Amino acid sequence: MSETTTLTIAAVQERVEAIFRRAGLNAVQAGALARVIVAGERDACKSHGIYRIEGALRTVKAGKVKPDATPELLPQEGSAIVKVNAMGGFANPAFELGLPVLAERARTLGLAALVINDCTHFSALWPEAEGLTDMGLAGLVMCPSYATVAPTGGNKPLLGTNPFAFAWPREGRPPYVFDFATSVAARGEIELHRRAGKPLPEGWAIDASGNPTTDPDAALAGAMLPFGGHKGSAIGTMIELLAGIMIGDLTSPEVLDYLGTTTLAPFHGELIIAFSPEAFAAGRPGNPFDRAEVLFDAILGQGARLPSQRRFAARAKSEVDGITLTAAEMEQLERLHTLGLDAVA
Amino acid sequence: MSETTTLTIAAVQERVEAIFRRAGLNAVQAGALARVIVAGERDACKSHGIYRIEGALRTVKAGKVKPDATPELLPQEGSAIVKVNAMGGFANPAFELGLPVLAERARTLGLAALVINDCTHFSALWPEAEGLTDMGLAGLVMCPSYATVAPTGGNKPLLGTNPFAFAWPREGRPPYVFDFATSVAARGEIELHRRAGKPLPEGWAIDASGNPTTDPDAALAGAMLPFGGHKGSAIGTMIELLAGIMIGDLTSPEVLDYLGTTTLAPFHGELIIAFSPEAFAAGRPGNPFDRAEVLFDAILGQGARLPSQRRFAARAKSEVDGITLTAAEMEQLERLHTLGLDAVA
Repeated sequence: MSETTTLTIAAVQERVEAIFRRAGLNAVQAGALARVIVAGERDACKSHGIYRIEGALRTVKAGKVKPDATPELLPQEGSAIVKVNAMGGFANPAFELGLPVLAERARTLGLAALVINDCTHFSALWPEAEGLTDMGLAGLVMCPSYATVAPTGGNKPLLGTNPFAFAWPREGRPPYVFDFATSVAARGEIELHRRAGKPLPEGWAIDASGNPTTDPDAALAGAMLPFGGHKGSAIGTMIELLAGIMIGDLTSPEVLDYLGTTTLAPFHGELIIAFSPEAFAAGRPGNPFDRAEVLFDAILGQGARLPSQRRFAARAKSEVDGITLTAAEMEQLERLHTLGLDAVA
Repeated sequence: MSETTTLTIAAVQERVEAIFRRAGLNAVQAGALARVIVAGERDACKSHGIYRIEGALRTVKAGKVKPDATPELLPQEGSAIVKVNAMGGFANPAFELGLPVLAERARTLGLAALVINDCTHFSALWPEAEGLTDMGLAGLVMCPSYATVAPTGGNKPLLGTNPFAFAWPREGRPPYVFDFATSVAARGEIELHRRAGKPLPEGWAIDASGNPTTDPDAALAGAMLPFGGHKGSAIGTMIELLAGIMIGDLTSPEVLDYLGTTTLAPFHGELIIAFSPEAFAAGRPGNPFDRAEVLFDAILGQGARLPSQRRFAARAKSEVDGITLTAAEMEQLERLHTLGLDAVA
């Protein structure tokens, strides 16, 4: 029963892409979606790996994402804003389309922003953040989610778990990158506690009356709490403003109204801000990339960790050894490929 | 003994400006510095009010800031980056010089950044954040500080209390604005506990061996902790990277090395990113300012607060009634004016 199968990263990509093609996604949607899912699996970030395929298919089946959308780049000449309309498809192909233009603008202007509108968001934000560092750029990525988090002092879901990611490029090694929810915990973690019949840690959630609770059911009926008290609540609000309202896309309460559920991938926009460290540091003493290494060495030198290192270690292993899937995972891939959208409710 | 004096905001500005002129600051330094100090006093934000005059004078006396500096705008044609060199003076006149150029660039390009280099930082960041909203822009402001905060998992001061501010403009009323340290508490709060002989709340600090402590002396000899655990630690690190290293200015450990103390105002740089909501929202449904009000109403509607509201209430009162100072405060202003730099150690 502990039989496993090891495949190259390319082979997993091919299989996942084939599943999406079979389910009716066009080539740009299927390719980009498979790339972020395989990246999650490669990095041993299982919550964003092949486990996510079903959710994507459910969202397609519910008619809440266009499987055959072709994202469109909207020319904004003479602007530091690059806009891509995902045309109701997934965010990932829209990002792939916009990234080279964003990078060129950021190099020319010093900083630039990529706005993705009308997309279904699906993956973690670190694939986007690492897309920037692959281009030698630093950057910030943020988007709303569904209304599941109460602002500090409030008692009802309003903000999303609004992820916030940042990355800084490092020469010859993986970037400095963080990507986290602005809630204390991800919604999935509460669900895992519920299934395991375990109480939540204090401070994660409130019940429907606004009182602190450690009961997962009460938490799911109530609201999650922002990380870091009023400071995290403020950052979550900032993300609604910048990556929802400012870019003319849905806020977390509007997403929930539109979908009516948190079980499908959310439909909203995304904001990516890219910085050229060379342009910013020009004319100033010191090389910014060398100086950043001094900072990272000082962090590591006192026994603290840099974020994402576990992911990068798994990646290095996967690149050499391939990706190992369990028999159940292999069967699941087989089943999804055979049944397509019939495999999901 | 409870005698107080009430002055108009303009009259307090005149007095504070005169103190700085008397202490050898030129007109641009004295004017800008007095404006942020008076803004603090006006907003009943005493920790950034006239209490700060002495610290500014001590920094001048120690030769760590140039009282007669004239900030220089560095032309960066065709760029989204506006650079101002503070020329060793305070950050505030450099910001005042750069703001109109930043606003013009942000309106033209959609977003733009103002970099202030070689400045002594002195005030809270909300005056800068509100400078942006006065121009109808949204924005982010950040800067390093002194190394007093241990990264999560570490045991020694490395990061600064690195403030992070954001503001969004609101029509006909004060902006949505937050401005907070990325440490759990400000260093001044630990000092206040020490003076009062009171233990610190749990989670604020570690001692010199890296163990949690509630003893203010042990905390001051050890390190403060970032807010929100590893997430706040990551944001603090991001600020070192973007607003220290990327802009070619000092990081928090470098600031501490340079000054050798945390009792003088820190010398480093500052990063201000400005967004034009109109430019971002162009061509999309809905007016971003109206939509933001819906979000704010929803926050207030569940009994949560918007940040800075206490400050704005105090401001509204000061604008009508003037600023009331105690007899001790009036004497202090008199003494600083008479003695100039001789008033400080």
